[in-house]
Amino acid sequence: MNNGLNQLFRSNPPFLRISAVYFSQTSRMAGKKVLNYDNINPNVKSMEYAVRGPIVIRAVELEKELAQGVKHPFANVIKANIGDAHAMGQVPITFIRQVLACVSYPKLLESPDIPSDVKQRAKGILAGCGGGSAGSYSQSTGVEVIRKHVAEFISARDGGIPTDSENVILSGGASESIRNLLKLFINRNKSKKSGIMIPIPQYPLYSASIEEFHLGQIGYFLDEEHGWALSIEELDRSLKAHQDEYDVQALVVINPGNPTGQVLSKENIQEILKFAYEKKLFVFADEVYQENVYGEGQKFHSFKKVLHELGEPYASGVELASFYSVSKGYMGECGMRGGYVEFVNLDKEVYVQFKKMISAKLCSSVLGQAVIDTVVNHPKPGEPSYDLWLKEKTDVLDSLKERAKMVSEAYNSIEGVKCNAVTGAMYAFPNIELPQKAIEMAHAVGVAPDFYYCKQLLEETGICVVPGSGFGQRDGTWHFRTTILPQPALTKEMLDRFAKFHKKFLAHYK
Amino acid sequence: MNNGLNQLFRSNPPFLRISAVYFSQTSRMAGKKVLNYDNINPNVKSMEYAVRGPIVIRAVELEKELAQGVKHPFANVIKANIGDAHAMGQVPITFIRQVLACVSYPKLLESPDIPSDVKQRAKGILAGCGGGSAGSYSQSTGVEVIRKHVAEFISARDGGIPTDSENVILSGGASESIRNLLKLFINRNKSKKSGIMIPIPQYPLYSASIEEFHLGQIGYFLDEEHGWALSIEELDRSLKAHQDEYDVQALVVINPGNPTGQVLSKENIQEILKFAYEKKLFVFADEVYQENVYGEGQKFHSFKKVLHELGEPYASGVELASFYSVSKGYMGECGMRGGYVEFVNLDKEVYVQFKKMISAKLCSSVLGQAVIDTVVNHPKPGEPSYDLWLKEKTDVLDSLKERAKMVSEAYNSIEGVKCNAVTGAMYAFPNIELPQKAIEMAHAVGVAPDFYYCKQLLEETGICVVPGSGFGQRDGTWHFRTTILPQPALTKEMLDRFAKFHKKFLAHYK
Repeated sequence: MNNGLNQLFRSNPPFLRISAVYFSQTSRMAGKKVLNYDNINPNVKSMEYAVRGPIVIRAVELEKELAQGVKHPFANVIKANIGDAHAMGQVPITFIRQVLACVSYPKLLESPDIPSDVKQRAKGILAGCGGGSAGSYSQSTGVEVIRKHVAEFISARDGGIPTDSENVILSGGASESIRNLLKLFINRNKSKKSGIMIPIPQYPLYSASIEEFHLGQIGYFLDEEHGWALSIEELDRSLKAHQDEYDVQALVVINPGNPTGQVLSKENIQEILKFAYEKKLFVFADEVYQENVYGEGQKFHSFKKVLHELGEPYASGVELASFYSVSKGYMGECGMRGGYVEFVNLDKEVYVQFKKMISAKLCSSVLGQAVIDTVVNHPKPGEPSYDLWLKEKTDVLDSLKERAKMVSEAYNSIEGVKCNAVTGAMYAFPNIELPQKAIEMAHAVGVAPDFYYCKQLLEETGICVVPGSGFGQRDGTWHFRTTILPQPALTKEMLDRFAKFHKKFLAHYK
Repeated sequence: MNNGLNQLFRSNPPFLRISAVYFSQTSRMAGKKVLNYDNINPNVKSMEYAVRGPIVIRAVELEKELAQGVKHPFANVIKANIGDAHAMGQVPITFIRQVLACVSYPKLLESPDIPSDVKQRAKGILAGCGGGSAGSYSQSTGVEVIRKHVAEFISARDGGIPTDSENVILSGGASESIRNLLKLFINRNKSKKSGIMIPIPQYPLYSASIEEFHLGQIGYFLDEEHGWALSIEELDRSLKAHQDEYDVQALVVINPGNPTGQVLSKENIQEILKFAYEKKLFVFADEVYQENVYGEGQKFHSFKKVLHELGEPYASGVELASFYSVSKGYMGECGMRGGYVEFVNLDKEVYVQFKKMISAKLCSSVLGQAVIDTVVNHPKPGEPSYDLWLKEKTDVLDSLKERAKMVSEAYNSIEGVKCNAVTGAMYAFPNIELPQKAIEMAHAVGVAPDFYYCKQLLEETGICVVPGSGFGQRDGTWHFRTTILPQPALTKEMLDRFAKFHKKFLAHYK
């Protein structure tokens, strides 16, 4: 194990600060290249992205070894590290893929096997493309007719609140929009870094991008004892604790939560928006899991709608960006790279600069944009694709709901594991009590105890999850993030393998 | 005109430094937002990307006005500002689109109307995708089987020099890889900025990204009098002139040239590589136009092959990145966002950091990656799609060759216009003599003279080209970049409209 870990760190990105030291020592000897470890961007070196970190790299290796016939104590690797639904067996929605096929190869528009509403959608998208081809660049902001459909979708979702498509920008997944917006906060001329408040635990896109962009990360803790609740007192405490060090400018909220799976109430969102108004914080509303709500009686409330209902001075006083992605929801179309941001109350001149900045990247994938169109302009009752679309969508969401329940219940039944109910999103973030001996062993080999645990879990069971330290957690607590995406039978098997491993682990380090 | 220009600058990105002053004055009054013009990323404000600058934004407005029935002195806008082939009427390659359709909607694999080689390619790609779906995330480096096909393609292109697919990374167009690599050179801890040498004129992705990333731009002039030749003396002069100010680390070469359309000889590339070796410069070889060579007796030589043939100490002593894109060549699939970088001699630890950095963006569009596969693993003689594929490919390249000749000849026949032969890529960069009165008028309204010229060209003829100042040019010379992409009849019409406008312009400002 010790050897394996060391090898892992030699060839893979440092997951923990401690390993960065290790790296810079070894590389100083080589250092002959123009571009070498010592002179490259220090923020790239210090950034971390656990969802694709060393454990995942090892999981890919194990998969290859199994395929080559190498023996391991398991027959297959179960990748529960990333919200990648299709990779875990979720079947694509027929309507989405038929539209995509027609947009890609318009000769299919003549086929009698393609439903008329699919053809109508594909024609609408193609009419918005230069030369009628998805091979043309779109405007950097996205294909105009798709932006219009997004605006209509948002408006319908929020009970008719008007939405201007001019405020909507399509991007390669939500990640690209989030990163683009974060870039505006970089300011080398200021004496203090711009501070961005993010939840702890958080989705590591935020911590990684904040580090890469040389911004200041300000964590506020979600309350594990109360279902990962977001308390205003904690926001306030965190802000006060960091406002000397940073020029705090933005607040990130992930709802439903990743990796924590909670869903915010309307009242909670109201409080958050009032706090943002008072403290002059730009709000990032990461709402990519808005279709993924499973808890009884729970409902997704968009930040935009709640802000609108709050009235003045909030409604026009809070700057807000809401993010959406086709990678999540019932679609799970991660590989298509489709997402959008809607801006509310963004300064007009800032928006001009934002659009100029993204223009150097030309545009996001036009087929990714087409997928967005299929989601926001989905089949309506009476259209030929409607029944199948509704059935496929409902099946996916029902099955996720079932697994959400199964997963949290299973973890709670295991000694030394506690898990909040998964009421939204696609993840559980169980709390694991680690024996002191295991913690000492981890420290002895220079890794975080939860990393040590997850690495052993992988090597012994083939289950690939992400250590809690990649998301952030209160000192002295240990977690991991698992998706609920393996199909029901595989989820069951994963939970069985896990329970056996955990028991053995506890016994070994007792 | 004066009013129109002012209005343009109020609502659009500043194209010239001068307008940045104008902006910050007006915005200081508003300045109440959390994120406002005064406090956002100064590098975003100062960056410029002319290919999508104010003239293009005005062209889009004009198109909309025409569609709404507004009268203008022309019936249609001719967008020669951007290398966007399909938007200008180039027809997609059937093979590419059939594979894409099957990857999108695998039920088509059962269709008797789809050729067997298309099915075979689509199955190969799907087998490389998680869960057999293009909706799964790929590895951040790209789908493994596609990277292997890219490596085989490079090896075949370069006469069998071995290529390791591990050195190939797929990305959203070449732009994404270029920007990712440039990011490694950012180093806030150094007293001097990292300097990146770029040709003047250059493709503004470089100047925009260098500015955004707070790097140092070092221009070396191409020699217009000698067909935009790249001279080592000029490289040396430029390097010496800037090495006190910057830590010069990299050299960008665009071959075939954008916007200049020249093709480098093997001997020239040898000299460049020796220069890079001696001066310890990392070489960016922007080779996205490698299929677009039209000049009699001219040939594309890859930097990698020339480096290999140079032998030691160069072959293993020069760090090189070569970029490729499906947006150019005979494909023109810009909207698909597919490209790759191949690294040669990159430091291993740096590569680990590079891969970690890109992992936070998850992956590029899997369908964009699929398009790369169709290009590098195209139909072979004897396969059912081969004849059609070859005909479509040849038609596109022959037609581009014809237009390349037509365009440079036409410009050279006009008084006060000189244009080097377009021997490669997709652009002409004609030199225009502007009358003193026009230059004074431009300065009076606070814009560059070539901008003034191009704006009038657009307003009076509907022709949209990009002023030379967006690419860089020798002081006191004026140019514009035009693509050769409008189809032959439209190219002819464009040249006619241009000739009439230019005569009138000269007469007016005499």
